[in-house]
Amino acid sequence: MKITMAHGSGGESTSRLIEDVFAKYFNNEFLSELSDSAVVPGSSKLAITTDSFVVTPILFPGGDIGRLSVCGTVNDLLMSGAVPKYITCGCILEEGLDMEILEKVIASMAETAKEAGVIVVTGDTKVVEKHSDVSGLIINTSGVGFIPEGQIIPGPSKLEDGDKIIVSGNLGDHHATILGSRMGIENDIRSDNAPLVEMTRKLMDAGLIVHAMRDVTRGGLGTVLNEFVNASKCSIILNETDLPVSASVKDFCGILGLDPMYMGNEGKMVISVSAKDAEKALLLIKESKYGENAKIIGEVKKEKESSDNTNVIVTTKIGGKRVVGPMYGEGLPRIC
Amino acid sequence: MKITMAHGSGGESTSRLIEDVFAKYFNNEFLSELSDSAVVPGSSKLAITTDSFVVTPILFPGGDIGRLSVCGTVNDLLMSGAVPKYITCGCILEEGLDMEILEKVIASMAETAKEAGVIVVTGDTKVVEKHSDVSGLIINTSGVGFIPEGQIIPGPSKLEDGDKIIVSGNLGDHHATILGSRMGIENDIRSDNAPLVEMTRKLMDAGLIVHAMRDVTRGGLGTVLNEFVNASKCSIILNETDLPVSASVKDFCGILGLDPMYMGNEGKMVISVSAKDAEKALLLIKESKYGENAKIIGEVKKEKESSDNTNVIVTTKIGGKRVVGPMYGEGLPRIC
Repeated sequence: MKITMAHGSGGESTSRLIEDVFAKYFNNEFLSELSDSAVVPGSSKLAITTDSFVVTPILFPGGDIGRLSVCGTVNDLLMSGAVPKYITCGCILEEGLDMEILEKVIASMAETAKEAGVIVVTGDTKVVEKHSDVSGLIINTSGVGFIPEGQIIPGPSKLEDGDKIIVSGNLGDHHATILGSRMGIENDIRSDNAPLVEMTRKLMDAGLIVHAMRDVTRGGLGTVLNEFVNASKCSIILNETDLPVSASVKDFCGILGLDPMYMGNEGKMVISVSAKDAEKALLLIKESKYGENAKIIGEVKKEKESSDNTNVIVTTKIGGKRVVGPMYGEGLPRIC
Repeated sequence: MKITMAHGSGGESTSRLIEDVFAKYFNNEFLSELSDSAVVPGSSKLAITTDSFVVTPILFPGGDIGRLSVCGTVNDLLMSGAVPKYITCGCILEEGLDMEILEKVIASMAETAKEAGVIVVTGDTKVVEKHSDVSGLIINTSGVGFIPEGQIIPGPSKLEDGDKIIVSGNLGDHHATILGSRMGIENDIRSDNAPLVEMTRKLMDAGLIVHAMRDVTRGGLGTVLNEFVNASKCSIILNETDLPVSASVKDFCGILGLDPMYMGNEGKMVISVSAKDAEKALLLIKESKYGENAKIIGEVKKEKESSDNTNVIVTTKIGGKRVVGPMYGEGLPRIC
């Protein structure tokens, strides 16, 4: 069965689609009346985020647009120090989309939401006309999290002299997966799309001094670290040999001339943590799901090395220095 | 200047787009760090909603996709008895979109948000490839509202025998506007896209017994009233002569063979209110912005007239009876 324009009309076909697919998988007490808003318990301090997902292909090795859409929004909430609670599911379907694929994606969203401890409380569905080269499905997920009482909120302007920079795992997996899928390259690379609930909550609950915390998505590590140095007026010095990249991705990059520093990830984060807490933080991340390849990759110096966009510096294997600017131009389109 | 794929990369071009357009208009304290989540004050009971807007054309008489996207989400929150507080702005831009049009839409969102008393706290931007027949811009707005202490939450299952049905103004304006725009018909019909904050808050604050409240959007009044009778196991009897439709829309419908009962609106609501409070409710709505054409259009009978989908009945001008079923099939595609 295929999606038709009638599924977006707001009438009988829309209702049936919602009941047969969305309500079936997202089944929870808040969705019961299928009204336009969900009424849910709140908290005195909230984190709110939104993210749209246009990735193509919509099914890829290691994940799919549904899993990705939950992970992206959950991770954004986590990065503010919040405990993710509720997410919304706004789907834009293309006429002709296979109902089986939609169901697979929605089932995957539901499973990932369960893993991440969030509830899909409300949704919306629109249908647009078929175009030849579109992947068939766009998903927006917005999220609400609770900020625990007394929680210190990390921010890119809070880096301090001597902080250690830790990345939670191998770089470039999602980017290489999407590009490999589009090019039809067979390999063992899998997307890292994952919710980082366990590692972030362990860091917060341990009361470690995490000055900044950011998920490393489109734009890659280079872009995030440039945001850090610009917001906090400092420099970051990285050691090239410490950057974690899997052997398969390293080979993939070698062949295609890609730099893992600018490749998108969907289950990785980078933190700037006070020097005294760095080893403890590294251990907590490594003990957490999805954190086994975490590494300390560099440190923060409070004085700026020089003018704008030259303050993230990599010390190379042979002892040279390379500036890591922010990413210019396109990157990989529709990676998330 | 045109939108390019680079604006969706997550790198330097994306940052500039956000600063030059989004941050400029949505300027508020919560957006200051431009991080992925906004941290905001909360409340003990929340309403959460999401809505994607795919309307074409994106600029139309009386409004635009930006104003529509704020009104749609604000109205969904209001219908749950919530005070709308925060909204998110997720934009999917098509490569080639004119920057001036984007700026016009975002300025309109900001103005409408101000009118509705909500803050755009966070956003996200993606860029997809150009297709020949797409309008250039899709917006998702998700919203969070606070449910006041002790607020009774209206719901479609709560209709009671003798309730009066009130519609807040003329039917079909938005639908006729979009269809007229696409067909190039010149007339004086304008979209009704509007935030219904004043009328809903007046009803809530007066403590009137409003059993159900719903904005009348795609699918039209017929679809909403069918949801009411199905959820509450009752019938609704309407008087045809009481249905408010402007002379221009009446003419437009006459020419094209359209039924205002199934036409979409974007600034209208329908309520089911206890008989004793009906006149008071009507007066409060009529005194509110966008409510001057409100009318009592019918009433609720607790016994069902008959089997499913035949329980919304219109008494016609000449005394006959006509069943109003839910809408089947397409309706008007991409009306919102």
